[in-house]
Amino acid sequence: MGRPPRRLLDRETIVRAGLDLVDAHGADALSVNRVAAELGVKGPSLYNYISGRDDLVDGIRELIVAEMELDLTVTPWTATLDAWARSYRAAFGAHPKAVPLLVARPIRSPGALRAYAVAFAGLREAGWPEHRVLPVVWAVECFLLGAALTAGPPVVAAAPDDPPPGVEALFDAGPKEFDAAFETGLAALIRGLAFELDGLLR
Amino acid sequence: MGRPPRRLLDRETIVRAGLDLVDAHGADALSVNRVAAELGVKGPSLYNYISGRDDLVDGIRELIVAEMELDLTVTPWTATLDAWARSYRAAFGAHPKAVPLLVARPIRSPGALRAYAVAFAGLREAGWPEHRVLPVVWAVECFLLGAALTAGPPVVAAAPDDPPPGVEALFDAGPKEFDAAFETGLAALIRGLAFELDGLLR
Repeated sequence: MGRPPRRLLDRETIVRAGLDLVDAHGADALSVNRVAAELGVKGPSLYNYISGRDDLVDGIRELIVAEMELDLTVTPWTATLDAWARSYRAAFGAHPKAVPLLVARPIRSPGALRAYAVAFAGLREAGWPEHRVLPVVWAVECFLLGAALTAGPPVVAAAPDDPPPGVEALFDAGPKEFDAAFETGLAALIRGLAFELDGLLR
Repeated sequence: MGRPPRRLLDRETIVRAGLDLVDAHGADALSVNRVAAELGVKGPSLYNYISGRDDLVDGIRELIVAEMELDLTVTPWTATLDAWARSYRAAFGAHPKAVPLLVARPIRSPGALRAYAVAFAGLREAGWPEHRVLPVVWAVECFLLGAALTAGPPVVAAAPDDPPPGVEALFDAGPKEFDAAFETGLAALIRGLAFELDGLLR
């Protein structure tokens, strides 16, 4: 019999274990020592691959962004933005508990910057003036972050004893209603932005 | 000399101390014992006023919603929705670290339900069909939650060594650019929704 197989560590394995922790137990659970415990190794052995908790968060962002489909060659720009938004929602909505963690940490990840570069390029090509590019992308991203954040939990508890009249729709609402809200918001945002661009280009 | 003045406890004082904790130290810091310590009392003495951490979160939501201006008599409905959204952003954007906490907990608060009731009523009066009322409000709320969540921290770290071309605008962006994104998104959402309603009522 040889020695027991040694767990092979690499950065991706470590970061993925961190994301699994966050998905299962929330952002508070993320620490280098806890990730090490999940991997069955001692904390210090991870520091050959990551520099600390912040670096774990950067790596988690990189993992999630890597799930986005960024080879966007659809036209017109409204279709590009729609595809970008759906891809963003799919990637981040799969990890709602990671969203607060990511928002609280400035972006350094090359993958995230590439995702911005794709969105910016699509808008520029459509004729959006330079000073409108960032506000437009951030506006859509605010919506997408909110949608990702609320992807998990129910919004409203079971009907209270004495609700104000007219809010009954809230008490039966679930994932189907969330999808409807997402479609409603994305369509309205893009339509409203298209209206602005039409005015600018006229 | 009499006895030292006894700290007067009531539910609002306790909940406000909880919100101060979250604002200063993040959602993880919120616990009954920590709030008690902030108030200079022992943990068990709080249980006459609150039932536990979840109840603190419910109270925090009630406090924040109480800061919203809900006496909305402006017309047309697009102006009502605009005012509701700005009021929501002002209230929740003042407490970005509380947002993940609130989103993770189903709503029970009467004040929050009243805020929905105001938004729903405005849309019904404008002619929105019943099945569109909830998706429209949630769509706007996704945007507002994202805007509140990102109200605090910088989005992008200082320019990395080798950024992809075309994303330079990110590296100088601050609160002014966030405001521009908020205005852009809110205007586009409302314009897009108005376009849909025009079609429905035609």
